[in-house]
Amino acid sequence: MDIEKELSALKEQVESRPGAKRKLSMIVFSGDLDKHIASLIIATGAAAMGMEVVMFYTFWGTAALRDPKKRVRGKTLVEKMFGAMLPKGRNKTRLSQMQMAGAGAAMIKAIMKKKNVASLDEMTELAGQLGVKIVVCEMSMDLMGFKLEELIEYPGLTIGGVATFLAEAGESAIQLFI
Amino acid sequence: MDIEKELSALKEQVESRPGAKRKLSMIVFSGDLDKHIASLIIATGAAAMGMEVVMFYTFWGTAALRDPKKRVRGKTLVEKMFGAMLPKGRNKTRLSQMQMAGAGAAMIKAIMKKKNVASLDEMTELAGQLGVKIVVCEMSMDLMGFKLEELIEYPGLTIGGVATFLAEAGESAIQLFI
Amino acid sequence: MDIEKELSALKEQVESRPGAKRKLSMIVFSGDLDKHIASLIIATGAAAMGMEVVMFYTFWGTAALRDPKKRVRGKTLVEKMFGAMLPKGRNKTRLSQMQMAGAGAAMIKAIMKKKNVASLDEMTELAGQLGVKIVVCEMSMDLMGFKLEELIEYPGLTIGGVATFLAEAGESAIQLFI
Repeated sequence: MDIEKELSALKEQVESRPGAKRKLSMIVFSGDLDKHIASLIIATGAAAMGMEVVMFYTFWGTAALRDPKKRVRGKTLVEKMFGAMLPKGRNKTRLSQMQMAGAGAAMIKAIMKKKNVASLDEMTELAGQLGVKIVVCEMSMDLMGFKLEELIEYPGLTIGGVATFLAEAGESAIQLFI
Repeated sequence: MDIEKELSALKEQVESRPGAKRKLSMIVFSGDLDKHIASLIIATGAAAMGMEVVMFYTFWGTAALRDPKKRVRGKTLVEKMFGAMLPKGRNKTRLSQMQMAGAGAAMIKAIMKKKNVASLDEMTELAGQLGVKIVVCEMSMDLMGFKLEELIEYPGLTIGGVATFLAEAGESAIQLFI
Repeated sequence: MDIEKELSALKEQVESRPGAKRKLSMIVFSGDLDKHIASLIIATGAAAMGMEVVMFYTFWGTAALRDPKKRVRGKTLVEKMFGAMLPKGRNKTRLSQMQMAGAGAAMIKAIMKKKNVASLDEMTELAGQLGVKIVVCEMSMDLMGFKLEELIEYPGLTIGGVATFLAEAGESAIQLFI
């Protein structure tokens, strides 16, 4: 057995295909209340287990990051239209099923409260405390006319593109598209 | 070349980032018929190829695991409402598109039968025979008021939380959110 | 330290759990315009970063690969019905949210054009140039009665089953279900 040669070959093999980190990368594409609940439960759960977590908000998901109390000026007409049509923040999102003209969302929230499940606001705060990173898709912000100033306050919220997501996901043990 | 040192460094590298097992972990979040078909085709396909498979049913997905023939007593009013509004078992689920007041689902099922594609019932049975593990989300069961006694008979069906999913997914080569 | 023994153990460990390739495998299940945009942005982005990319089109996703200019003969009545009900190509797909009787899709396309984001056609062409592989699900084609002759021209488009996807995904660093 030629130890040096064997060792070099193994090293090369390991370097060409490094295993993944204990890390979770998630694309939050959906604008549905139920999927936001799921994504935050998974993200905070993973962070509590000591995993590194990155949530990449894109498309309809970005609307959930708006702060309903913030106003921005200087939007074009189309941007104002988008702003008005999309839910203003995560608490205004609707269910993907059983919508019942908004009653479904109210019902889920009431039950979550009764059963002592954390609200979206509490889960988002917890995510921030646990160091869950949030990256907001630059192209989506641009297409929908959202400005950074109208998003929620969140520690370490950054703007990024698909390359940001791919770099994070490529070294993650778990990747999900929600 | 210091063989011992090189070997230790490589060992450390491998241990800090272990490659994944030939294993598939899937979150079945959706309550749609078409997504249930897809999830079972993927699960049984992977198991037939010798992969370890875990399906984690959560949110609307849990309703698909109810057995329409089973009745449970002692539910609260809200739990009864949920029970009545959600599909009673996988054969009552609807399509995510082309619903056409239920006709779409009937059409897909008729074509699957004609083309000799296994039904949801047959695929679920096959999954059980192939050793596909099913974990049902504890929090979803609690929120929707579903009891273990009203779920289908399935070998090795267990109840678990997000930590269960994350532990399985973290060592899996493939993870999907459906 | 028994070098030979240590080396053998490490080799075995690496071989039993090889790390993943710089590769992205994606199931395109959805028939929604917004998800097609997302899948193509991710696919072309990954390919541009030098990753190997495979898109596996299944269920509603397959309809987006139809070429609206192509006609095929010899379809059964049910196959003709499916053909008529499903969108004829990616430019006829609708949004998953904010449909507004088709106005939402037109609005998104207009904004994408104004902001100089590539159209679905341009992104598909780019994907082909970058070597993104497209595999179309055989069972979906069969169920919906689609023929290979009615699909778009795309370099290296092939037909495959779930085993094809699982083999690709199993060695990929990133897998997504869209």
